[in-house]
Amino acid sequence: MNRWRTIGVLGGMGPAATADFLARLAANSGAVDDSEQPRVLIDSNPYVPDRNAARAGVGESPGPALAAMARGLVAAGAEILAMPCNAAHGWVLDAATATIVPFVDMIAAAVAEVAALQPRPRAVGLLAVAATLDGRIYHHGLEAAGIAVVECDRAGLQGLVSLIKAGDTGVEVAIAMQALAADLAGRGAEAIIAACTEVPLVLTAAEVPVPFIDATASLVRATLLAARI
Amino acid sequence: MNRWRTIGVLGGMGPAATADFLARLAANSGAVDDSEQPRVLIDSNPYVPDRNAARAGVGESPGPALAAMARGLVAAGAEILAMPCNAAHGWVLDAATATIVPFVDMIAAAVAEVAALQPRPRAVGLLAVAATLDGRIYHHGLEAAGIAVVECDRAGLQGLVSLIKAGDTGVEVAIAMQALAADLAGRGAEAIIAACTEVPLVLTAAEVPVPFIDATASLVRATLLAARI
Repeated sequence: MNRWRTIGVLGGMGPAATADFLARLAANSGAVDDSEQPRVLIDSNPYVPDRNAARAGVGESPGPALAAMARGLVAAGAEILAMPCNAAHGWVLDAATATIVPFVDMIAAAVAEVAALQPRPRAVGLLAVAATLDGRIYHHGLEAAGIAVVECDRAGLQGLVSLIKAGDTGVEVAIAMQALAADLAGRGAEAIIAACTEVPLVLTAAEVPVPFIDATASLVRATLLAARI
Repeated sequence: MNRWRTIGVLGGMGPAATADFLARLAANSGAVDDSEQPRVLIDSNPYVPDRNAARAGVGESPGPALAAMARGLVAAGAEILAMPCNAAHGWVLDAATATIVPFVDMIAAAVAEVAALQPRPRAVGLLAVAATLDGRIYHHGLEAAGIAVVECDRAGLQGLVSLIKAGDTGVEVAIAMQALAADLAGRGAEAIIAACTEVPLVLTAAEVPVPFIDATASLVRATLLAARI
């Protein structure tokens, strides 16, 4: 018996991160066989306009593409929507208002998990690309909760994300990502958010010296909770 | 510039195998950034009627569900279709004739790679569930190529597939899968096909004593080739 709403996924930002999100949805659903899993419709669309370029004012907005993807997924049967890309949440209202179905907000899910940490961190480090930092996508929610933000080395993080998007998830990339996390902790971050879906492809809590909130994992939990009938 | 046809995926059989297929499409596309990746629309539908039950004559046919999924994917924009589930290929004609777009056949892709092995194996072992064996899904193509079939221990394989579908991809499952492969080699298999998409979630060529054809990898290659404009 199906106990789930059909999940629609605005994906492809990037494709490997979307595959990671799907694998974790399946692994965390609690299903003991296929028939207990949720149905998931995915639009893995790598042609959504570049979030960094749009945020920097030198490229078109991703909003219309995200809205079209949301409408397409709902037309195909999606009953709730989720988007495993942090930076794209700068245009989340375009996607969320394009249809009448609930949209599970990745940023809200991750911020809620940070705010629930005991003890609550006074400052949180963000492993995030420029579009996420400059869009203040996490700043709003964290600062509203009285938590300061420590930003990562942008150029360093972007270089690693580009390597991961090109398929390199090897040990050198992983070690460099660990160094970015250690740098955040060294500058006062009492917890760190993997605020880019490529980050957890090479970094897990075991390699981070402070509590580690993986926003992809937060979205998996929030999505499965919202999808349960 | 998009150099790809939009790929539609009939998935969810099971969901983790579909995530594995997506990850491998992204990893093998040759793309150096998102914009060079193909767009992929996925219907991860775990409610397709059970293939083993249908083949055993005790459950409804998966054909109509697969046909509906194919039509839905094409309506959403898919320009070629692929289905990362071996057993479901027993009803591939239902899916392939439901729309006018090309359907990339996983079985044909894997058999072609087996037939191209040098030296060509005289007998090939199948790590496959009952629906795939009893449907003679691989037997037809292999026997037409003059290659004999060695069938795996069905109960043993099904038990492992069920564990993997329940999320267990641990070392004990992996070792048991290696033993099934070794048993096939011991009974004359000169190559082995991972003819179930759960198999490569725990088994790679490095653990198999003879040439190993991973049908999921074959489908990835054939799909990317067919999708290239």
